[in-house]
Amino acid sequence: MLVEIRLRPGIADPQGSTIERALPALGFDGFSGVGVGKAIRFAVDGPDEDSARARVEELCRRFLANPVIEDAEVTLSAAGTP
Amino acid sequence: MLVEIRLRPGIADPQGSTIERALPALGFDGFSGVGVGKAIRFAVDGPDEDSARARVEELCRRFLANPVIEDAEVTLSAAGTP
Repeated sequence: MLVEIRLRPGIADPQGSTIERALPALGFDGFSGVGVGKAIRFAVDGPDEDSARARVEELCRRFLANPVIEDAEVTLSAAGTP
Repeated sequence: MLVEIRLRPGIADPQGSTIERALPALGFDGFSGVGVGKAIRFAVDGPDEDSARARVEELCRRFLANPVIEDAEVTLSAAGTP
């Protein structure tokens, strides 16, 4: 399972801005809107996909993301491919 | 476009281990293999998907990831959904 945590629109992203500003000097043109977030992967036990997703969304809301400044997106994959 | 950068198997991930150890005490059981990486999103100009992907993979290899300890996975999405 993959949880992608990214800054909400309008929240300053100095890490992303710095990368975006540096890329042309490094020979990479045409990149825009660079944003840096977190990618958290794990396996979770559960009887079915819906209950696993609900638990992970609660986990994101309560602990993994700061909902004031961050959005979390949960992507499930089948067992064996966490 | 999304680049997910994660630590290679066998590289210590203290951030992931700490989250995994804390979850049962917070009421979330059944989580395993927690790993924390980076999620970098951006838009890239290019004539077609193959050339854009090739440039992004070179960018990952040279600047975004440390290939000694990290793997990078590139996921393309259509224009307008960076």
